[in-house]
Amino acid sequence: MGIHIIAEFRGVDPQKISRVEALRVVLDRVVAKSGLHAVSSSFHQFEPHGVSAIYLLSESHLSVHTWPEYGYVALDIFTCGSDGPALKAFELLLEEFQPKSVKKRIIRRNIFGENRSQDTL
Amino acid sequence: MGIHIIAEFRGVDPQKISRVEALRVVLDRVVAKSGLHAVSSSFHQFEPHGVSAIYLLSESHLSVHTWPEYGYVALDIFTCGSDGPALKAFELLLEEFQPKSVKKRIIRRNIFGENRSQDTL
Repeated sequence: MGIHIIAEFRGVDPQKISRVEALRVVLDRVVAKSGLHAVSSSFHQFEPHGVSAIYLLSESHLSVHTWPEYGYVALDIFTCGSDGPALKAFELLLEEFQPKSVKKRIIRRNIFGENRSQDTL
Repeated sequence: MGIHIIAEFRGVDPQKISRVEALRVVLDRVVAKSGLHAVSSSFHQFEPHGVSAIYLLSESHLSVHTWPEYGYVALDIFTCGSDGPALKAFELLLEEFQPKSVKKRIIRRNIFGENRSQDTL
């Protein structure tokens, strides 16, 4: 039924992830280019820096939480339907954030009791 | 740094999860009672039924996606700080939705490369 990509990006340039204004531009672009469909988006600016961003998608959701002081981004992309747009969004986020290291986990979510995970480094 | 509870509820009464109006009341109550802090919330009504709900929290986020035709709820609670409020929210959601079966997965997320999971049925 769905794919849920859970990823930790580390070694991200803090400038890219400190403020809502900068992050919103990147995420809007990624969502538009990925083929996902945003219903709405919400942002929260932490002070002195750090952002939470959540896109409610017609396919489910995409969320980004940032800790610029650690160069850390916690990313979730959960979509129903075909996997393509979620995987595309993930690749685009890699390009945008250029993390030095990535921990990615993929979970299949559905009503049938199956909840397989596939870990990659 | 954070706890991420990923759960599939099955066998949920479709009446409880078909419409935004009903779900919003339940989720607002759960968030308030759990000790989590909502910054904002967004909802999407699917037709003829089904809801996506996302709460942006000062601790990260809580999301619920429902498929009433299957009695299915896909739940995420991702919080930073102490685990207590997230676990409390999960227990409250169990009480509210009374699922016939639950698949729960807990992931520890942090900047240190550790991403352990703990599965329970």
